[in-house]
Amino acid sequence: MRIVLLAVLCSTFAAGQVHPAFNLMPQPANLQLGTGELPVTRSFSVAITGRTELRLQRATDLFLADLRKATGMLPTSDQISDPSKATLVIHVDNPSRDIQELGEDESYVLEVSPSGAKLDAVTVLGAMRGLQTILQLVNIGPAGFTVPAVTIKDRPRFPWRGLMIDVSRHFIPLDVLKRNIDGMASVKLNVLHWHLSDNQGFRVESKRFPKLQQMGSDDQYYSQDEVRDLIAYARDRGIRVVPEFDMPGHSTAWFVGYPELASAPGPYGIERHWGIFDPAMDPTEDTTYKFLDSFIGEMTKLFPDQYFHIGGDEVNGKQWSANPKIQAFMKSHGIKDNQALQAYFTRRVQEIVHKHGKIMEGWDEILQPDTPKDVIIQSWRGQDSLASAAKMGYSGLLSFGYYLDLQWPASRHYAIDPMPAASANLSKEEQQHILGGEACMWAEYVSPEIIDSRIWPRMAAIAERLWSPKEVTDIASMYDRMHLVSRRLEWLGLTHDSNYEPMLRRIAGSDNIEALRTIGNVVEPVKDYSREETAAATPNSGDPLNRLVDAVRSESDTARHFAEAVDLFLAGKSKSTNENKIRECLVHWRDQAPAMEKLPPNPLLIEVIPISQNLAEAAQTGLAALDYVDKGQPAPESWKTAELAVIDRAAKPEGQLLIMVAPPIRKLIEAAVGQGSKAQ
Amino acid sequence: MRIVLLAVLCSTFAAGQVHPAFNLMPQPANLQLGTGELPVTRSFSVAITGRTELRLQRATDLFLADLRKATGMLPTSDQISDPSKATLVIHVDNPSRDIQELGEDESYVLEVSPSGAKLDAVTVLGAMRGLQTILQLVNIGPAGFTVPAVTIKDRPRFPWRGLMIDVSRHFIPLDVLKRNIDGMASVKLNVLHWHLSDNQGFRVESKRFPKLQQMGSDDQYYSQDEVRDLIAYARDRGIRVVPEFDMPGHSTAWFVGYPELASAPGPYGIERHWGIFDPAMDPTEDTTYKFLDSFIGEMTKLFPDQYFHIGGDEVNGKQWSANPKIQAFMKSHGIKDNQALQAYFTRRVQEIVHKHGKIMEGWDEILQPDTPKDVIIQSWRGQDSLASAAKMGYSGLLSFGYYLDLQWPASRHYAIDPMPAASANLSKEEQQHILGGEACMWAEYVSPEIIDSRIWPRMAAIAERLWSPKEVTDIASMYDRMHLVSRRLEWLGLTHDSNYEPMLRRIAGSDNIEALRTIGNVVEPVKDYSREETAAATPNSGDPLNRLVDAVRSESDTARHFAEAVDLFLAGKSKSTNENKIRECLVHWRDQAPAMEKLPPNPLLIEVIPISQNLAEAAQTGLAALDYVDKGQPAPESWKTAELAVIDRAAKPEGQLLIMVAPPIRKLIEAAVGQGSKAQ
Repeated sequence: MRIVLLAVLCSTFAAGQVHPAFNLMPQPANLQLGTGELPVTRSFSVAITGRTELRLQRATDLFLADLRKATGMLPTSDQISDPSKATLVIHVDNPSRDIQELGEDESYVLEVSPSGAKLDAVTVLGAMRGLQTILQLVNIGPAGFTVPAVTIKDRPRFPWRGLMIDVSRHFIPLDVLKRNIDGMASVKLNVLHWHLSDNQGFRVESKRFPKLQQMGSDDQYYSQDEVRDLIAYARDRGIRVVPEFDMPGHSTAWFVGYPELASAPGPYGIERHWGIFDPAMDPTEDTTYKFLDSFIGEMTKLFPDQYFHIGGDEVNGKQWSANPKIQAFMKSHGIKDNQALQAYFTRRVQEIVHKHGKIMEGWDEILQPDTPKDVIIQSWRGQDSLASAAKMGYSGLLSFGYYLDLQWPASRHYAIDPMPAASANLSKEEQQHILGGEACMWAEYVSPEIIDSRIWPRMAAIAERLWSPKEVTDIASMYDRMHLVSRRLEWLGLTHDSNYEPMLRRIAGSDNIEALRTIGNVVEPVKDYSREETAAATPNSGDPLNRLVDAVRSESDTARHFAEAVDLFLAGKSKSTNENKIRECLVHWRDQAPAMEKLPPNPLLIEVIPISQNLAEAAQTGLAALDYVDKGQPAPESWKTAELAVIDRAAKPEGQLLIMVAPPIRKLIEAAVGQGSKAQ
Repeated sequence: MRIVLLAVLCSTFAAGQVHPAFNLMPQPANLQLGTGELPVTRSFSVAITGRTELRLQRATDLFLADLRKATGMLPTSDQISDPSKATLVIHVDNPSRDIQELGEDESYVLEVSPSGAKLDAVTVLGAMRGLQTILQLVNIGPAGFTVPAVTIKDRPRFPWRGLMIDVSRHFIPLDVLKRNIDGMASVKLNVLHWHLSDNQGFRVESKRFPKLQQMGSDDQYYSQDEVRDLIAYARDRGIRVVPEFDMPGHSTAWFVGYPELASAPGPYGIERHWGIFDPAMDPTEDTTYKFLDSFIGEMTKLFPDQYFHIGGDEVNGKQWSANPKIQAFMKSHGIKDNQALQAYFTRRVQEIVHKHGKIMEGWDEILQPDTPKDVIIQSWRGQDSLASAAKMGYSGLLSFGYYLDLQWPASRHYAIDPMPAASANLSKEEQQHILGGEACMWAEYVSPEIIDSRIWPRMAAIAERLWSPKEVTDIASMYDRMHLVSRRLEWLGLTHDSNYEPMLRRIAGSDNIEALRTIGNVVEPVKDYSREETAAATPNSGDPLNRLVDAVRSESDTARHFAEAVDLFLAGKSKSTNENKIRECLVHWRDQAPAMEKLPPNPLLIEVIPISQNLAEAAQTGLAALDYVDKGQPAPESWKTAELAVIDRAAKPEGQLLIMVAPPIRKLIEAAVGQGSKAQ
């Protein structure tokens, strides 16, 4: 029986063993533990005092539905009118604004005693955040479900806490967006930034310029009704929706229907590859601005948010340089280079956006000396860029360091703070210009099947960075709580975990995925931008995204836990327990290779075979290292050289995947040699 | 290592071990194996000859997308114009009709040789069915993906092959319906019957009578745009959409907004319980028919299908009997009883439906002596009811025996044939009146989270019954192929399997679900209508449906495989192999109990504890029986009596669940005694 358990332990590696008393993520600004607990029973009921409105009632309904799902309680009543009889009393002072605004008060005070709970908030938004806190506080004990007696006074550190989803490179259906909005609400995010157009697709219905979606979307776009539906859905969860229409670059999809907007003659086709491309709007023609005025007029009506994102990134200027008419215009207008030409364009677009009553937002590139001060800068360049903008009086938010598509571990995102380092010397007032941040889900390598696993659970770590006090930085605690958040997200319908095994079965071509899962659990996709184009002749957008690299998680829990066990073992902590764990895993990894070789080969599996072999060899090496350590004998240098070569091979990307347990195994080898020299 | 594998074997019990050469489900009418195989490579391409149209092109696109997903191939090209260069040539003779019709030709001929494939069909529908066949034929071999050389001449046995989904008891969002439509298309079903109104909810937007959805749906309804969207989605997959508005009973939700339609004064509220209720439309008022004329006029425009379902089932007549005005009307019109009154109502509604250009459909109850002959009868009563209707000249379809909510095993549904027994003595012409059948997913105990697991994979067995020749009845083959279909369905996004473990983790309140899964794998929900109301005072519709009974599958593969192993063992086949399997499972089931007891209790787990204990005791008993068999000694009668009492206890419903391995364990006990007497 012991073997079974350990094998299972290694394959999932102790996930969910930890149950912190307070599973809150993001951590609240202030929490005081009281005495005792409030039972959560079937008679749990909610009363609303103070102002009430439909949005608050719906928030309460959603809360009760989630509570029932989590606990299995059948309600005997739910929303009641008599506060003296309610388990939870919600009091909100002010009505919702018609359109949710940046900087609205999101604070709340939650007091839980053994006899009841009280949630006070200035706004409905604050109540929504507090309700999520209650859901996370519900705990199972011998007496059933309870909420610990606590007093929580909470407010976000930053007012702008977002997630950008690119729906252009791959279209993401409405229901997938909705389940992600549910996830966002659960970790107190408040902005969905919807990247609606790019070279690879124009994704929203325009009634004024229908060829935009008709010719630029492969028939994959959101109708205006669907847009309104999503915005209402987000609003009910306290989330603003900011649309982005990227211009003047990243706009090939516009030109399929309207080639006259471009700086070079058409015809244009929807871009099928990833990268930076030449097509850009013609900033020298008045017809361009006339078009944009009409289009922006239509879209600013459809999207009620105060902010309107015009992209503005990565214009390579090649079409401009190659067009004599544009060159002549620049000369006659004293525009010295392409950057200045983009500044000219941005200024004119800003006037249009302003005319339609909105505040413009854009990527770093839109910041030019005479950019109006109310424009918001979204920085993919970093905190320094943000700091210098703040010094110039511009507000901005950080996306550098929060690119989910780069496949970084949660801890790396978590360590990045939107507030520039002290060396930036921002005044108090300048610091106010740092509004927060946005995680970015660029969609070159995501499909509806994969996107949840690329966003979650790592998004929760960034959400905590943006909500919680700066001092909340304990990585171990973050991972423990993120794991619990991950489980809750599944119940909301997010598929970040549940799609893993079906994809493995598809790759294996059978149910027999034991060995494949063993490999999948210890690898991660290559990082940053190193996923290569599979074949130059192949359109990237035709990639079915069904390889092992697409199925595995962005971050391997197993590898992380294994690395921890190795560090503890080498530090002499719980030495035999950790050695047993390590050995068990290594045996497991060694033994997957013969099983993998028995699977009937197919193109999806064939690329996994070298990974399987590398993993098995690395494990064998690790076992030999452990034997040296056990014997207390120095491993010879010649052995070390040979074995490190094995690890070097294992550490190299293969099938766009990295074996994440190679580095800790390397530590074992080095220790096997090192302890020898110490013993001598 | 052996222990690990066997333990895993028992928990999943050999699922997916079988790879029949032809995984087709439903089985085609005629298949001839050729020589060799057609390689499916990256250069796989499709050309359309004969007539082409957008619907066929979209069907081809969907086919290619599925093929890419299943194989991981990046296409180098897809739809091409030169048939001599295409891997697959599709030839269709006729254009699609504007509205898909009952009885359209769905036949196709598929010829696959090592050098290419040819798909010929009279209609686009036939091509769609053939494309699904190709997808199922794709196999993995050492040479990569291939399709075997075959000639398939296929056509459905019945023209009406449907699935009814009740969206009233629980609202089912559009995306959930869409993924189920994908599943339907994959097993060649062709009708989605949308049960849109009932006592518990009115689910479609009416512009003429907006209070229907505004007051009768808890704001959970489909807008008319969404309805059109779903119909277009279904059409692209060769599926008709037949709406049902149940009347004159099952109509409480109508009366919330329009109490004047009812036969007793209001006010009415949306019904929160399950069952048969008194409210019924007033069939004696002309205003009722005026309302229905206007409403049906609106809905027959929204739903293009030729058929319009008016329900007509389960009117208990209590409101009619209690209303003096209705009684007076009956007297003055010579209507002798409530049944005759419903016949009067049905006749008038039929005239309205007919006036709006549709053919009426209804449940058995609508069949009365003077019902017009073009009305379609959907029978929940059985083949005899259908046969007598056929003799009277009415066409009908069978739903008796295909109620998915009754939690029957697939084999039981599979054994039921829409064609009445020979004893019904139907003439050839009368047999033509048996149009096919429809599975019914009544939604008292399903939510969006659960519904896929209640429909799939059992729906595939019924789909085969309706498509394949009558002689296709091998149950073992059905189960093997159904398992493969089940895996493919996951890739379409169906969650029938993937939601299982997240739900178990929610019930366990932790990741530690080994023991709970062991139990969950061998139990099934109670059958037929025996799931009791949990508490009379509790509204059924508030049930969060998150208990173990909601998480487990309708049919346990593990229990089925265990029962087979017991039968083989007792028949002396592969005796020691089977005994090992049986013993391993019994040990596994015995050992889950201590693990279960260690889990922190919660209300969802507490009801599982008696099941855990009963399973452990039954397993212990089975092990003792095996020991007797091993020793070849007769087990004493007194032992038998005591042990059968254990089994009796285990076989009783507990937490609305049945331990499905209790009956085969009982066989072991009886054999232990029986072999003794034989030995004496």
